[in-house]
Amino acid sequence: MEISFKKRDMISITDFGREEIIYLCQQAKKMHGLEKNKQRDGLSDELKNKAMAYMFYEPSTRTKTSFITAMRQLGGSSDGFSGIESTSVMKKETIRDTVMMMEANHFDVIVMRHPLGGSLQWAADVASIPVINGGDGENEHPTQSLLDVFTLYLLNNENLDGISIGFGGDLSHGRTIRSLSLALSNFKDITIRWAAEDFLGMPEDLVELLASKGVTVMREKRVEDVISKAQFYYMTRPQLERMGDITQEDVMKMIGKYRIDLEKIKKSEVKLMHPLPVNSEISEISYEVYFDDSQAFFPQAENGIFLRKALLYEMLKETESIPFSGKLNPLLERGHNRLKRTIKEKVKEERRFIDNIAEGTVVDHLEPGTEQEIAAGLDLTKRGCSSIPAHLPKAGKSFLKTDLPGLSERELKRITLISPEATINHIKKGKIVDKFVYLLCRNMNCVTRVINEDVPPKFYDDKGTVRCRYCRKSYSIRSDKISSNEREEFLGSLPKGIEQITSGS
Amino acid sequence: MEISFKKRDMISITDFGREEIIYLCQQAKKMHGLEKNKQRDGLSDELKNKAMAYMFYEPSTRTKTSFITAMRQLGGSSDGFSGIESTSVMKKETIRDTVMMMEANHFDVIVMRHPLGGSLQWAADVASIPVINGGDGENEHPTQSLLDVFTLYLLNNENLDGISIGFGGDLSHGRTIRSLSLALSNFKDITIRWAAEDFLGMPEDLVELLASKGVTVMREKRVEDVISKAQFYYMTRPQLERMGDITQEDVMKMIGKYRIDLEKIKKSEVKLMHPLPVNSEISEISYEVYFDDSQAFFPQAENGIFLRKALLYEMLKETESIPFSGKLNPLLERGHNRLKRTIKEKVKEERRFIDNIAEGTVVDHLEPGTEQEIAAGLDLTKRGCSSIPAHLPKAGKSFLKTDLPGLSERELKRITLISPEATINHIKKGKIVDKFVYLLCRNMNCVTRVINEDVPPKFYDDKGTVRCRYCRKSYSIRSDKISSNEREEFLGSLPKGIEQITSGS
Amino acid sequence: MEISFKKRDMISITDFGREEIIYLCQQAKKMHGLEKNKQRDGLSDELKNKAMAYMFYEPSTRTKTSFITAMRQLGGSSDGFSGIESTSVMKKETIRDTVMMMEANHFDVIVMRHPLGGSLQWAADVASIPVINGGDGENEHPTQSLLDVFTLYLLNNENLDGISIGFGGDLSHGRTIRSLSLALSNFKDITIRWAAEDFLGMPEDLVELLASKGVTVMREKRVEDVISKAQFYYMTRPQLERMGDITQEDVMKMIGKYRIDLEKIKKSEVKLMHPLPVNSEISEISYEVYFDDSQAFFPQAENGIFLRKALLYEMLKETESIPFSGKLNPLLERGHNRLKRTIKEKVKEERRFIDNIAEGTVVDHLEPGTEQEIAAGLDLTKRGCSSIPAHLPKAGKSFLKTDLPGLSERELKRITLISPEATINHIKKGKIVDKFVYLLCRNMNCVTRVINEDVPPKFYDDKGTVRCRYCRKSYSIRSDKISSNEREEFLGSLPKGIEQITSGS
Repeated sequence: MEISFKKRDMISITDFGREEIIYLCQQAKKMHGLEKNKQRDGLSDELKNKAMAYMFYEPSTRTKTSFITAMRQLGGSSDGFSGIESTSVMKKETIRDTVMMMEANHFDVIVMRHPLGGSLQWAADVASIPVINGGDGENEHPTQSLLDVFTLYLLNNENLDGISIGFGGDLSHGRTIRSLSLALSNFKDITIRWAAEDFLGMPEDLVELLASKGVTVMREKRVEDVISKAQFYYMTRPQLERMGDITQEDVMKMIGKYRIDLEKIKKSEVKLMHPLPVNSEISEISYEVYFDDSQAFFPQAENGIFLRKALLYEMLKETESIPFSGKLNPLLERGHNRLKRTIKEKVKEERRFIDNIAEGTVVDHLEPGTEQEIAAGLDLTKRGCSSIPAHLPKAGKSFLKTDLPGLSERELKRITLISPEATINHIKKGKIVDKFVYLLCRNMNCVTRVINEDVPPKFYDDKGTVRCRYCRKSYSIRSDKISSNEREEFLGSLPKGIEQITSGS
Repeated sequence: MEISFKKRDMISITDFGREEIIYLCQQAKKMHGLEKNKQRDGLSDELKNKAMAYMFYEPSTRTKTSFITAMRQLGGSSDGFSGIESTSVMKKETIRDTVMMMEANHFDVIVMRHPLGGSLQWAADVASIPVINGGDGENEHPTQSLLDVFTLYLLNNENLDGISIGFGGDLSHGRTIRSLSLALSNFKDITIRWAAEDFLGMPEDLVELLASKGVTVMREKRVEDVISKAQFYYMTRPQLERMGDITQEDVMKMIGKYRIDLEKIKKSEVKLMHPLPVNSEISEISYEVYFDDSQAFFPQAENGIFLRKALLYEMLKETESIPFSGKLNPLLERGHNRLKRTIKEKVKEERRFIDNIAEGTVVDHLEPGTEQEIAAGLDLTKRGCSSIPAHLPKAGKSFLKTDLPGLSERELKRITLISPEATINHIKKGKIVDKFVYLLCRNMNCVTRVINEDVPPKFYDDKGTVRCRYCRKSYSIRSDKISSNEREEFLGSLPKGIEQITSGS
Repeated sequence: MEISFKKRDMISITDFGREEIIYLCQQAKKMHGLEKNKQRDGLSDELKNKAMAYMFYEPSTRTKTSFITAMRQLGGSSDGFSGIESTSVMKKETIRDTVMMMEANHFDVIVMRHPLGGSLQWAADVASIPVINGGDGENEHPTQSLLDVFTLYLLNNENLDGISIGFGGDLSHGRTIRSLSLALSNFKDITIRWAAEDFLGMPEDLVELLASKGVTVMREKRVEDVISKAQFYYMTRPQLERMGDITQEDVMKMIGKYRIDLEKIKKSEVKLMHPLPVNSEISEISYEVYFDDSQAFFPQAENGIFLRKALLYEMLKETESIPFSGKLNPLLERGHNRLKRTIKEKVKEERRFIDNIAEGTVVDHLEPGTEQEIAAGLDLTKRGCSSIPAHLPKAGKSFLKTDLPGLSERELKRITLISPEATINHIKKGKIVDKFVYLLCRNMNCVTRVINEDVPPKFYDDKGTVRCRYCRKSYSIRSDKISSNEREEFLGSLPKGIEQITSGS
């Protein structure tokens, strides 16, 4: 297989395999070579007349600046926004419309950061031009992982197998550790060691996932134990902004003995990495360590330029500009999330209600007590529809019956957000003609759950695991509520695996 | 007449006539042709070394980005500010000084947005370089109108006569509908239909103005009636930010049945336009419509690039840069707003006061009860002046007498803001030697009313209507207070019509 | 001596002498000549592929825009941040790390503004690329001074000797007056006259300093007296943002009769300068004056372009790009601020305590009553150290004894911030082996006092005056507490004079 990044999106590190990562490292090494041979501007006409849009819905200097630098050194230009105060977001424009607006401005590539998980896959689905994920909430930041891997590649004699690395700081709330370790899982004989308080430790699901991919993950008691055994130590900043009620003081206590200071590092030959910024108050890396030979995080920062320069070059070199179609892809309209249910005879009591309407909708399997809220949310009275929200405590059932003939996607989403197991029954001529569950990603931070964004939930079959197309979280379908036939039928109707995603854009 | 946009300002759509609008559409069509023939960068050296300043005192992504894109594709560069938090506006710098500062920076053209009506004409008066209005409050946004007209031009076989268009959404609080319909009024057989709640409906003065220009405007009951009869439907976003106490919920109720959904649009061949952004919560255009063939608002957005590219090209191509003079035009110092009053004998009571001072000023015809406030505002005590604020209830008169020999422009403005009919009498050697009313634009949002901006009020004679040079609102002089002779003399002293304005800069 | 600005920093105007200032004026005059001869873009390829980083931690339009314009006209590019809301500063990144991050982005020069005095010298120390001070708090803004001097140079027939200038507005709270008068002090027969309320008047220390450099400074009663005697009048904006509790209304009263209006200026031939912006509410220069021939502040603004263009050109022309080392200079780790104290026999009572510990630290000469706070700040209990904070009222002594073997730089700084005369005694085997005072700059606004920034305090010997390397404020060592021997030894250990600083980067 020939490796090419031309016009491809860069959304999740998991979309790229071993050979692709090595290829990118090789290209980044060439950029590194240009710089070190005083040919910083050796490619300064390559992307002339190409333009990058940056869409930073969350603050960024580091990522934005490095992409702009990369583009500048390739002769391209950049424009966009950073922070939402001065943008149409304040006027409640959707991601979809904003992406279309930027594409109408004839940019050739988009780099975007957004607080919602999955927002970047959605942006990539909307855009005809390639999209690079500059961070989607707690989810991913793949060019950070790639520059980290590239740093390891450089420090480890252009080899990524057999690496032994330690992780420290906050392994739980950031996207860095997850993405980096998944990137490393493509390589052989990877050993990860870590030491941290439970609250800041490696998430169990990640440890399991890594184990399944052949990565050795070992928890140590002390940072010193990790450092003595690892070639590299990757320290991270506690992500206070994602910790809810935890204060900085709490975190400072937790991180106490896990700080990197000269004492811990002085006897080892470890190379110290950090995605930066270091929080100077928490001081997870102490002042003196900055002057130690172990310091590798400043070169790591420069590696971000090389990696991003290589990525943009590989995406855009010798390509024609993509014209703006002015239309949305029809595939954006609908999801892959309707779990069809078998239509069968109902218990008498329930049928009684259904039989009463010739045409309409019954929503059953509601969480007891939610039927009123759901009826109110559908605004049935004002729309002149009849409605019977019913709660039958003995039968343990709640449902809502109405003569409204159908439900919009927004309405389906609103119901499912309130009552995730709700089942929709469409009635025609007194019979149920359609019966389904509207599946919605369970990740609270997923872009598909924000009603106004109108992102149709889509799932795909990742080797038997159902995953959200957007935030990539797995979705377990409760088997006691549906038959195995129904489950099989649903899985069969899903697009297979990750190929579906990377061949996107 | 040869049409040229070289070094001209673009402040109000009403400054441009039929032939000029057609000419711009033709030039924009050429830019459109380049793009569609894969020659996006065909003019990429034309404005090399030309620079555009953007001065956005209000949020913008859309307008700013499209101007920067246009400039980039022509080989020019852009710099400026967006949002006032990080600018000298916070240090209370005037528009005048900020425009001069930008001009000192050797920009070749300014694009500016500002919340005050008329601020853009003022900026254009100050600047020696051309100025483009990117939106001045509720007033105008002429390049939006031009791109709208250009979209109609493209969709209607390069013809702008005989167009039948529907308007929806908020026809009352935005500048889009006003400017677009005035632009269309240059063409033959234009029919406008609309349907909306009264609160969001077409303003009566606009309807009358359009009628006087031969445009047919018809109100319909239902959106469906409009859509079935119109070729184009122009939907707009409710301008919540300009509605005062009205909440989004109120607006959602009002807009209810006027929303554009698939049901309303499916049987027609209408093309749906929208200046964007759509408010995704109000959802004035529903999700499904985005996928319908009627959708023309994304191409419309791209047309903004073509139109602005054409405009900048026409303004700046083959021009020498204009040197910065470092001086203000002396014409900026004074207004055309002193309505001279006939000096005649006064009633005894009033004369008594005037006779008491040899040199000084009497301000009469004050709103009863404002004399104290005005005296205080002039700070007469601290300046060592004598002052007699008099209120004579029986005579129904209020006036202020002082031995201050003259009033500055700021003082005249301050008095007139409090008491609009105030008449200034200058006394020398016991006699009135000068008597005038200081006229001030009645538009509360006009830049001339902001004291610190020091914009001298100017009026002009637009075919018998007195208009504010800045916000273009008409000004009616109350005839019961002045003689028809005085009125005629004032009109005679005003510059005639709009030529005075467009020949500016 | 050949004059060159290649790769040099521009931090303080006091780093540059007469010949250097004249040289820069000559180069700026060339840029001025290009513009006036319609060759604005005559150097538009000179800095191709060179890039300027702007790092504005405080709002700026004027300074940022003029640097970007200068860079643009030389063919270079610019990127960076303005305002801290959308940057990593919010994540508590140090200046040091942010500068390193920008340098990793391959910029060739940094222009930075920061609220802390001395922050720019620190940035210059960190960076391998040249750094230009765009304003460090109340401290300096050298390119403003240089453009002011260049304006005088142009207006005074390219001569800077014998100038007679008046100062007005706020001579006390801004950095402009200080820097400009120090710049002028390099020239012969300079006379400065000023008139202002005491609160806004010339600082005494500045007047003394100028006198010592041969500048005549004379206070006049009235602005009119200054104007009648001076060639130039330099008006400034009251720096409300640096006045604490003073309101704008207070300032308006104070500035009352010192405002520049037409009355005051009309009989003179004075040229009126102002760094801009003028505060339009305070109106320190009245509206009418803008139209007077005396107005020289708009040309002065344009001169900023010429000066900055000349400066960037001189710094970067025909230079190779400086590669990013990825390392911090080891000199950044330690300060020149340890005042060694003679170790001698102690009074019995104090020895008793010291003798009790074999290894540890005693901090004495504490401000009475601070010993508890200092002990708490060192967190000794949690670290398992014993501690005795002692207050001996009769002896008038406070000290803290602990078996903690050493103190980190942050701890030394924390102690000294609380108790500036604190003396550190290190005990080994029961004896004091080291004894010193940790000197900290007394300027409350100096970057060295911000603990998290980790700037090691450095002092140097400026002809017998001890100055802070960062904010340049002088530091007086209390002689009653130390012997003259100790003082001499400390002075001898300091780097000499200003050469040390300019040869930096």
